[in-house]
Amino acid sequence: MRVFGIDCGTEITGFGIVESDDNQREPRLVCIAMGAIRLKKTKTTAERLEQVFRELTSELERWRPDAVAIEGVFYSVNAKSALKLGQVRGVALLAAACQKLPIAEYAPLKIKSSVVGYGLAKKEQVQFMVARLLGLAEVPQPADAADALAIAICHIHTAQTLALQTPVEGATR
Amino acid sequence: MRVFGIDCGTEITGFGIVESDDNQREPRLVCIAMGAIRLKKTKTTAERLEQVFRELTSELERWRPDAVAIEGVFYSVNAKSALKLGQVRGVALLAAACQKLPIAEYAPLKIKSSVVGYGLAKKEQVQFMVARLLGLAEVPQPADAADALAIAICHIHTAQTLALQTPVEGATR
Repeated sequence: MRVFGIDCGTEITGFGIVESDDNQREPRLVCIAMGAIRLKKTKTTAERLEQVFRELTSELERWRPDAVAIEGVFYSVNAKSALKLGQVRGVALLAAACQKLPIAEYAPLKIKSSVVGYGLAKKEQVQFMVARLLGLAEVPQPADAADALAIAICHIHTAQTLALQTPVEGATR
Repeated sequence: MRVFGIDCGTEITGFGIVESDDNQREPRLVCIAMGAIRLKKTKTTAERLEQVFRELTSELERWRPDAVAIEGVFYSVNAKSALKLGQVRGVALLAAACQKLPIAEYAPLKIKSSVVGYGLAKKEQVQFMVARLLGLAEVPQPADAADALAIAICHIHTAQTLALQTPVEGATR
């Protein structure tokens, strides 16, 4: 299973692609690629949104994931920031929808809990565990890419848990 | 000059196309078309955003406006609503950007002031004046389409004012 995680931001949008080897007993997670879309401040809002859409579409076409995972809506920010973040998020969701990919949304607490085992973990703890789970020598940079990888890992962990709960056809009970 | 006005909403996004006959001394405003994109509640957020993008793109290609006008960001709503509205707004801006169209944003006060002559005008007053300025027998329906026409009219009025302020080449002083 290959998952494309997206961490939306009004200045930098991170992405990370994680693959799990579902044939093994203890599925191994592999980081396929990661990166960040940096938006120029000199560009208009519409130009920035077009950049996010084109670059995400290009990466989705390149890595052909089975699913897209994105951070769920959270409301701790103010209305001004929320609207700006919403614009980027809308374009990211559109890019995934145009590729006919299933989209999963996870709350920040759920993502941290899935990666560190503790919902109120600090940012550094999440990044450290992302590197460890993916067998990387260093914490992925920039932080936005590490966050995107965490979202992808969260989706894989959730899918694996769901698979364990679903009786496999022909399995011995 | 042909202007495509967009009134973004999380359930209904209105659009209206207004043309001004710039050759006349007193430019006449004509309503070319209007409509509303109604989003089904049964659809996922991504599917709704894709619908908005595809329908707006189709209308922009059909009516080939010179510019797109959209309501500017306003912050009176709460963060949850702002994020949802932002998602639709992001996709609308993207549709215009993909068509390489210039985009103008107007604050709600400016739109009302431009159409009614009074920034704190009520919704009904705006709709009545939209019908009157466009020579329509009835108030355009739904309200979202009327609002989109108001945004387009605001852009034409603003462009005309700017044109009056700019010295025309070869004009007698």
